[in-house]
Amino acid sequence: MKNFGLSELYLVDPPELARDGEAYGFAGQAREDILPNAQTVSFDALVEGFHTVGTTAIPNEDDRRHVRYPFKTPRELAASLHRLDADTCLVFGRERTGLSNAELSRLDQVCSIPTASAYPVLNLGQAATIILYELRALTVESSQHPAEIQRASETEIEGLYGQIERFLDVLNHPAEKRAKSMRLWRRLLGRAHPTGREVTTIRGLFRRASDRLASEGREPSRGSE
Amino acid sequence: MKNFGLSELYLVDPPELARDGEAYGFAGQAREDILPNAQTVSFDALVEGFHTVGTTAIPNEDDRRHVRYPFKTPRELAASLHRLDADTCLVFGRERTGLSNAELSRLDQVCSIPTASAYPVLNLGQAATIILYELRALTVESSQHPAEIQRASETEIEGLYGQIERFLDVLNHPAEKRAKSMRLWRRLLGRAHPTGREVTTIRGLFRRASDRLASEGREPSRGSE
Repeated sequence: MKNFGLSELYLVDPPELARDGEAYGFAGQAREDILPNAQTVSFDALVEGFHTVGTTAIPNEDDRRHVRYPFKTPRELAASLHRLDADTCLVFGRERTGLSNAELSRLDQVCSIPTASAYPVLNLGQAATIILYELRALTVESSQHPAEIQRASETEIEGLYGQIERFLDVLNHPAEKRAKSMRLWRRLLGRAHPTGREVTTIRGLFRRASDRLASEGREPSRGSE
Repeated sequence: MKNFGLSELYLVDPPELARDGEAYGFAGQAREDILPNAQTVSFDALVEGFHTVGTTAIPNEDDRRHVRYPFKTPRELAASLHRLDADTCLVFGRERTGLSNAELSRLDQVCSIPTASAYPVLNLGQAATIILYELRALTVESSQHPAEIQRASETEIEGLYGQIERFLDVLNHPAEKRAKSMRLWRRLLGRAHPTGREVTTIRGLFRRASDRLASEGREPSRGSE
């Protein structure tokens, strides 16, 4: 929850949560705020006070029953809640048995995570992690990531291509292969989205190599004068 | 891993994994195959044998260093590996300290999960869960979910609208409000994508209510004859 910007934890019929107990032991930095501030409430209070989304590993297969069907995937749930002004509560069931059909019947929506059919049951922590991860666009105000990955400017990149052309030139790369080689470099670097530093570094290497190759080419000819 | 269709686990410098130990205790059904079949290998072997993707919570902020930058998000990584024929190894670091800069320097790509900047560090299990979840399109052959959510046919849905119109009629809903009410029903049901069973059930309810309302309307007038 804390990793994805959420803070309000409601517990229905929890065991005692001792400060030196298992839950605090697993809570990471949430032991500072989310867990001590958790409120114990009734299931009724959740149903009455929130738009509720129940979670289940095993949805119904088809249209014949509507306890766990139709369900949304976590990504569809995020889209469904986007731009919506509604106090929403994600309801996760017990570690071993999840939510009962009677409980799910009282909840407004159903969410189910697509997994391998051979082993679809995630533990509670994994299920919560995935769903909160998918809802992050709604809950995380600022992530630890920079807003953008900086791509080198076109001028820098074209400058690098120019340096590579010069490199081919001093290498005496066959003229008829020149265009194909340049296209190959353009494809390779084009899809890698090089950063400014990458372009500057690689351009510098080609420049130094070309300078050395060019001077080596001149020196013998000067020596033979 | 097993939840998302993966099976090959490589361990670098692992502690002893006893059958009655902590790792087996947390492994769920993976204790049957993935964990006992895990291979202990050197870090060098991973670098030499695979296209490697290192994972880190804290990427570099910008272009000045390239140990953890540029990085891909898990979703970008999935797109980057899609349609690619390459033996790829996701490399996760130690629970407490992750991968060192020296280790990341030897890996081919970097992946970082966007989280709240206030608390970006996920535990190893959560990080693996999210990344494997995002890569599921590449690894899960068949999920536990039905391929499609069945929407009622247009004929069924239009039949329901017809029943609702009759319901408004026997309710003596003001004629000038009829069109607006029907538009409201169409918007509500249209965005809910009702299933066949939902349409059949609700249509039946409106039919029975309309029949009863219509016969109640007739009986008093018959009684007054």
